[in-house]
Amino acid sequence: MTTQQESTRELHMTTQQVADRFYELAKEGRWEDIQSELFSEDAKSIEPQHAPLPLAEGLSAIRKKAEQWQEMTEETHGGYCNEPIVAGNFFACAMGMDVTLKGQGRSTMDEIALYEVRDGKIVQEQFFY
Amino acid sequence: MTTQQESTRELHMTTQQVADRFYELAKEGRWEDIQSELFSEDAKSIEPQHAPLPLAEGLSAIRKKAEQWQEMTEETHGGYCNEPIVAGNFFACAMGMDVTLKGQGRSTMDEIALYEVRDGKIVQEQFFY
Repeated sequence: MTTQQESTRELHMTTQQVADRFYELAKEGRWEDIQSELFSEDAKSIEPQHAPLPLAEGLSAIRKKAEQWQEMTEETHGGYCNEPIVAGNFFACAMGMDVTLKGQGRSTMDEIALYEVRDGKIVQEQFFY
Repeated sequence: MTTQQESTRELHMTTQQVADRFYELAKEGRWEDIQSELFSEDAKSIEPQHAPLPLAEGLSAIRKKAEQWQEMTEETHGGYCNEPIVAGNFFACAMGMDVTLKGQGRSTMDEIALYEVRDGKIVQEQFFY
């Protein structure tokens, strides 16, 4: 039983491998691919308490949140994601964007995004800004 | 009034400057100096829910937590702190240590440590492991 569990575990990507793939896709702005490929079905997405976006539990709620963000956005002028740092089953990166939100004008946003990995999948993302 | 506030604000270190100084001291293991020099008096320190250490509110509680950790520790064999990443008023770094805890044997621990900065001081530290 233990041996079976261990051999299953070996098939999972390590946190470093998930972070590397995340970074590869993030640099190209492929956020939907990141969700499909790297997120667990029951992943959570946590914004700061002061943010207008709600806690999203599960991949479909996370996709809905992305749609809400798109609806709030008039134009995305640019964005960046720096190379992740990795420790244990977490990785974090500095990212940001330059957007015009509807009725709010243009602004730049910078944040630390923190990801928790279990069994080779992202189970939680949390944003700090 | 606005002008006074702005000129006061200019005297504060930026998040990048706090992160740079933090890193300089952390590489030398000068954690007490980090607390004295860079932490706000009312700073909070947050461990994961599964950790045996409590939430510490205020610098004296944070110092008490450090003492508790020392009491739990038989020997510290080594440790590291990697260069911080910075975004907005947050910075984060990967850090870890190699310790023997009393009655628990030797183990290595890796974590992401996340710091929030306000007015040139660290107001919150949060550990993810």
